[in-house]
Amino acid sequence: VAPDSLAERVLAGDLRALSRAASLLEYDRESGRELLSDLFARTGRAITIGITGPPGAGKSTLVNALTRTLRAGGKTVAVLAVDPSSAFSRGAILGDRIRMQEHYADPGVFIRSMATRGQLGGLASATLDLALLLDAAGWDIVLIETVGVGQDEIDIAGLADVTVVALVPGQGDDIQAIKAGVMEVADVFAINKADLPGVERLEQEIRFVQSLSDKNRSASPAPIRRVIATEGQGIDELLSAALAIFEKKGRAGDRTGIWTARIRERLRERLLSAAPDSAILEQSIRVARREIDPFAAVENLIRLVLKEKGEQS
Amino acid sequence: VAPDSLAERVLAGDLRALSRAASLLEYDRESGRELLSDLFARTGRAITIGITGPPGAGKSTLVNALTRTLRAGGKTVAVLAVDPSSAFSRGAILGDRIRMQEHYADPGVFIRSMATRGQLGGLASATLDLALLLDAAGWDIVLIETVGVGQDEIDIAGLADVTVVALVPGQGDDIQAIKAGVMEVADVFAINKADLPGVERLEQEIRFVQSLSDKNRSASPAPIRRVIATEGQGIDELLSAALAIFEKKGRAGDRTGIWTARIRERLRERLLSAAPDSAILEQSIRVARREIDPFAAVENLIRLVLKEKGEQS
Repeated sequence: VAPDSLAERVLAGDLRALSRAASLLEYDRESGRELLSDLFARTGRAITIGITGPPGAGKSTLVNALTRTLRAGGKTVAVLAVDPSSAFSRGAILGDRIRMQEHYADPGVFIRSMATRGQLGGLASATLDLALLLDAAGWDIVLIETVGVGQDEIDIAGLADVTVVALVPGQGDDIQAIKAGVMEVADVFAINKADLPGVERLEQEIRFVQSLSDKNRSASPAPIRRVIATEGQGIDELLSAALAIFEKKGRAGDRTGIWTARIRERLRERLLSAAPDSAILEQSIRVARREIDPFAAVENLIRLVLKEKGEQS
Repeated sequence: VAPDSLAERVLAGDLRALSRAASLLEYDRESGRELLSDLFARTGRAITIGITGPPGAGKSTLVNALTRTLRAGGKTVAVLAVDPSSAFSRGAILGDRIRMQEHYADPGVFIRSMATRGQLGGLASATLDLALLLDAAGWDIVLIETVGVGQDEIDIAGLADVTVVALVPGQGDDIQAIKAGVMEVADVFAINKADLPGVERLEQEIRFVQSLSDKNRSASPAPIRRVIATEGQGIDELLSAALAIFEKKGRAGDRTGIWTARIRERLRERLLSAAPDSAILEQSIRVARREIDPFAAVENLIRLVLKEKGEQS
């Protein structure tokens, strides 16, 4: 790392350099990745905690409460709020900022909303890149908050070192379809608004779904913690549970499993852009004219972009 | 198509052959695709209608009501209910079947639940393949019902000829995050339970989101129809709106656009399995040991599976 370079200034804790580097990652992915290659050797100290769950689970309030507790313990906290980049989310981002405003003046808290899906590379890679940057820059904890609606958002939270799934009691049967998608990524469950009726029933439901899941059948089931995020109740216990999981699966052992998931996600994004649009269009026209069937069209495209098995070195 | 072959019997309207062919598609994808290649020339007559929307929008009831109206008009109807294959969905599939039971004895109605995600290829391809089979077999209408929660499920509904998005009034602000994901695939909106308060407000919200969307700025906005599916109210009008859209964008013109989306989805599924797990694991171990950075790991994998730009023929 060259002296006075952007990388060097990020490592020295220069907040303006950090913001510039974050923007670089978002708007000039090539340069951003070169920067991160330089910084990668300095990562591995931060703990990233993903927080996801269905709408209405109070995730932002939970992030706010976790931030307060972490700050009280002397940790620096970076918050990455991931919103799908659609018309509706603009209000949500503004809402997050309002809820986090008690931390805005605190230099030990860094807050950034990610909503770049479809612009420059995938949202998951952009979020992971920013988390690596913050890690290298010396931030202790990176909280990645995603709304657990789309599979993409759930996956992003699942790529953290530890994933907390927030649920609330009494959302009715319909919410179960949402919960299904997030159950698999949970390392810890936070039952928020635990003063509402239905807490026991929700715990039983979680235990039931865990008992059906292959993942949880082999390992010890994810712990459940009850919290009231608006009042800060149970946050210490939730944090302890999350950090204990991290010690068990992350820092203590090796992190190959986490890297496998992250590299698979990055590879996925790269492969999706492998076939040129013009080639896909050409094949589509031939199928629409019934000159070829869609299976032949896909095989033609596969042959165009992939090496033959024998060619792989 | 050879006489007495499975393909020939499917074309002749043999329901047992159709069920066998459907199972072949689900459990032996290679043979299934060979069958479909033989049958592809006989497709292009059916209309596929995707129905999606957030949990609680009454999609199954809507599908039931659409089926009744289509049957009354002399059309044969195949229903493909797509459920994420997770623990929670088992109950949902059973629920669908109970709701559709008035049609179970009707030989003009074919019902199948799709929940094969992660088993053999992707859920989208499996659903599209089954829709092609039903098309070749002479079914008039294929209804593809997906729960509009994950992006995958939304995408599948969006791969139909026409996509109906079901919404209900008064689900509150939280539901807006869900709606965001489904707004883009809508050709027609069905406001179900239109006797509930808040219908005008929901219509205004839909119009507002449409006004922000690039897709809808260039074209005429998707029509909105009010229905009460449990009582069959407004179903004729909804169906007319959906079929009018199909005439405009599908049958009348050419279907290149639809095939582009479908081929892109199939290609996506194929490309995701391009890199061998062993190679991904090898790179992940090197990153976890900090021998290489994750960007180099992804590049190594890309070089392993993709042809160089210059190699593409």
